[in-house]
Amino acid sequence: MIKEKYVALGKKPSAIRVLFEYGKVRKQEVGEDHVFDFSIGNPNAPAPDCVKEAIIDLLNNDTSFHLHGYTSAVGDLKVREAVADYLNKTYNANTDAKLIYISCGAMPGLAAVFNCLIEKGDEVIVFAPHWPDYKVLVDQVGGTLVRVKPETVNFYPDYEDLINKINEKTRIVIINSPNNPTGAVYNEEVLTKISEIMSAKSKEYGHPIFLVSDEPYRDLIYEDYKYPYVTNFYKDSIVCYSFSKTLSLPGERIGYISVTKDCYRAYDLALAIGGSARSLGYACAPSLFQFILPKCLGQTADLNFYKENRDVLYKGLTDIGYEVIYPHGAFYLFVKALEEDDEHFSSVAKDMDLLIVPSKSFGYPGYVRVSYCVDKKTVVNGLPVFKKLYDKYKGE
Amino acid sequence: MIKEKYVALGKKPSAIRVLFEYGKVRKQEVGEDHVFDFSIGNPNAPAPDCVKEAIIDLLNNDTSFHLHGYTSAVGDLKVREAVADYLNKTYNANTDAKLIYISCGAMPGLAAVFNCLIEKGDEVIVFAPHWPDYKVLVDQVGGTLVRVKPETVNFYPDYEDLINKINEKTRIVIINSPNNPTGAVYNEEVLTKISEIMSAKSKEYGHPIFLVSDEPYRDLIYEDYKYPYVTNFYKDSIVCYSFSKTLSLPGERIGYISVTKDCYRAYDLALAIGGSARSLGYACAPSLFQFILPKCLGQTADLNFYKENRDVLYKGLTDIGYEVIYPHGAFYLFVKALEEDDEHFSSVAKDMDLLIVPSKSFGYPGYVRVSYCVDKKTVVNGLPVFKKLYDKYKGE
Repeated sequence: MIKEKYVALGKKPSAIRVLFEYGKVRKQEVGEDHVFDFSIGNPNAPAPDCVKEAIIDLLNNDTSFHLHGYTSAVGDLKVREAVADYLNKTYNANTDAKLIYISCGAMPGLAAVFNCLIEKGDEVIVFAPHWPDYKVLVDQVGGTLVRVKPETVNFYPDYEDLINKINEKTRIVIINSPNNPTGAVYNEEVLTKISEIMSAKSKEYGHPIFLVSDEPYRDLIYEDYKYPYVTNFYKDSIVCYSFSKTLSLPGERIGYISVTKDCYRAYDLALAIGGSARSLGYACAPSLFQFILPKCLGQTADLNFYKENRDVLYKGLTDIGYEVIYPHGAFYLFVKALEEDDEHFSSVAKDMDLLIVPSKSFGYPGYVRVSYCVDKKTVVNGLPVFKKLYDKYKGE
Repeated sequence: MIKEKYVALGKKPSAIRVLFEYGKVRKQEVGEDHVFDFSIGNPNAPAPDCVKEAIIDLLNNDTSFHLHGYTSAVGDLKVREAVADYLNKTYNANTDAKLIYISCGAMPGLAAVFNCLIEKGDEVIVFAPHWPDYKVLVDQVGGTLVRVKPETVNFYPDYEDLINKINEKTRIVIINSPNNPTGAVYNEEVLTKISEIMSAKSKEYGHPIFLVSDEPYRDLIYEDYKYPYVTNFYKDSIVCYSFSKTLSLPGERIGYISVTKDCYRAYDLALAIGGSARSLGYACAPSLFQFILPKCLGQTADLNFYKENRDVLYKGLTDIGYEVIYPHGAFYLFVKALEEDDEHFSSVAKDMDLLIVPSKSFGYPGYVRVSYCVDKKTVVNGLPVFKKLYDKYKGE
């Protein structure tokens, strides 16, 4: 009667959540200052002022009926227009309001897209290491997640492996740049290469293979990069964006799905995404947080907050002797574990109240993910614990 | 590649939405005052003051990190405790925080429950007439929606038909009281009768048949009724509640799922609902609107607003000569169409700029649904148009 796979999923949420929940309990036992929780990607730079200002302005000047009422299921039209304008101005995205679906964050966007495109037995390619819940979402629609390995300098895709893994059952290739968990940002060269491979394979198999670009970290880039917008490289791309990280609103569940006018059956695809989301129970994205968007597009939480953490932690860890991928975006460091078994390594760290996530859960063993969306104190006081951990393995 | 069923669903949202969207356009053409839109169940009594007060209090006194951050996927623990306490005090519900899942409204709650319990080929019973999207949600999980007919005085279930329709494939019976579209409220006698039938059938087939109670209108009752809480009548009940109507927040997507401790495998079921929701892309319910709940539980929008509309409209329509089901709750009148073809009847009304929803879309032809969550002006000025419509059919 009750599907056991969901009982199991409900029992063991995810390696990240397990560590995070442990951390909350542990802090009550030994005190906040004695637990160094680098487990979860919960942005801790405060939401930018525009958020609170917009909410209060709306509460004081809009009607309850409009502000809290149902919007169109695909999102309020004016909000979709504002998002389309922003994407066109910022990235030359060649989209319009009808091609925007306002979603409850990136995860429901991915769920709606997978549900809309994947039949039982279809394959979805992802580049390892990757956010664990891609597997949950692909499993849900009966698809098979196929991992392509990375090269281990920049953690860009291994193109030969991509070529070998695409077959006639491949429907979707997922990218996630800036990347969780490595912090890698795909540059124009990487996107061009992926696009070339996917175009050739789409032609070979006689149907488009969609590129699904999961972009919650798009605005969290710490260098003088201009983010290369994916639809400009590969027209059959579906962008799943979230404001969770950009505006530090992960709990509020607001984001969007966007395609370009040149996409395969663009307008039918947009309609189908709406129909798919409705079938999964999505009535509309939270209305208040839809209506703040026109006032907050282009703004971000204070990125220096994360950049400083990154710099201190990267330098601190490499000085100790750790091997760390240099991250250009997001708020994660991907650190080589000091033994083969990353889960054991994480548990040794946990015994020191240092909470870091084993990379096996990201489909790529041998590393740990260190989230640096934490307060400075945790970074500064955490470094000696990383040193203690290092010494335990390497001697003093 | 793109599943055509979702393109179709995206193209034609629902009869209600189609009329509602038409009304918006039509109002721009002929002026707001000349369109009498009784189509959508968008509550128009303003949210009670506690909502705005709680939001501003939280914005001023909570941290951005806590207020807008991820909560536990199943909902913030303190919020779940508050909901459980409220249900125990108000209805003697015998539940606890672990049996509460905070959902993005009732619809996602239903989606998660169906996904968790229904295998391909299973049957789900619903009492006609019913909210159309039950079919969308049941179709999505591969189930078959089976309609039980009502008696036509109070629009309670036809029990003989229920007995005949339950078979070994039946997994769920859905109830929705107060009812959309009839306004019927199931009293203790009705719930006792349904419970007796389901208990006997569960025993006969050797597995529990779950009662899924969709309760967005629970607090919209206009008489001196005490709402009979379903788990007190049938232990294997799953309550899907929404604050959309109670607090006039339909756009904000906040509600919960609750079961009683005595339910079949209650704690496993609660875990499975969480796992199921996660698989559908639900990360957590909007955090700000979770946190206002402890301050707003038990409060409602001004129900007199709806009650007055009901009284004026019920009297007005019956005085004209319409046959109307007397509604004890929700904000709908179910009115017998003046011809067999309710869709044609609705289109004749539409030509008079009177927007009423044909009942065929509710799985029960021959009626129209008149939503009275509209401003008084629409009721008062709409009545003469109802008269004109009546006269067109019945002569003067």
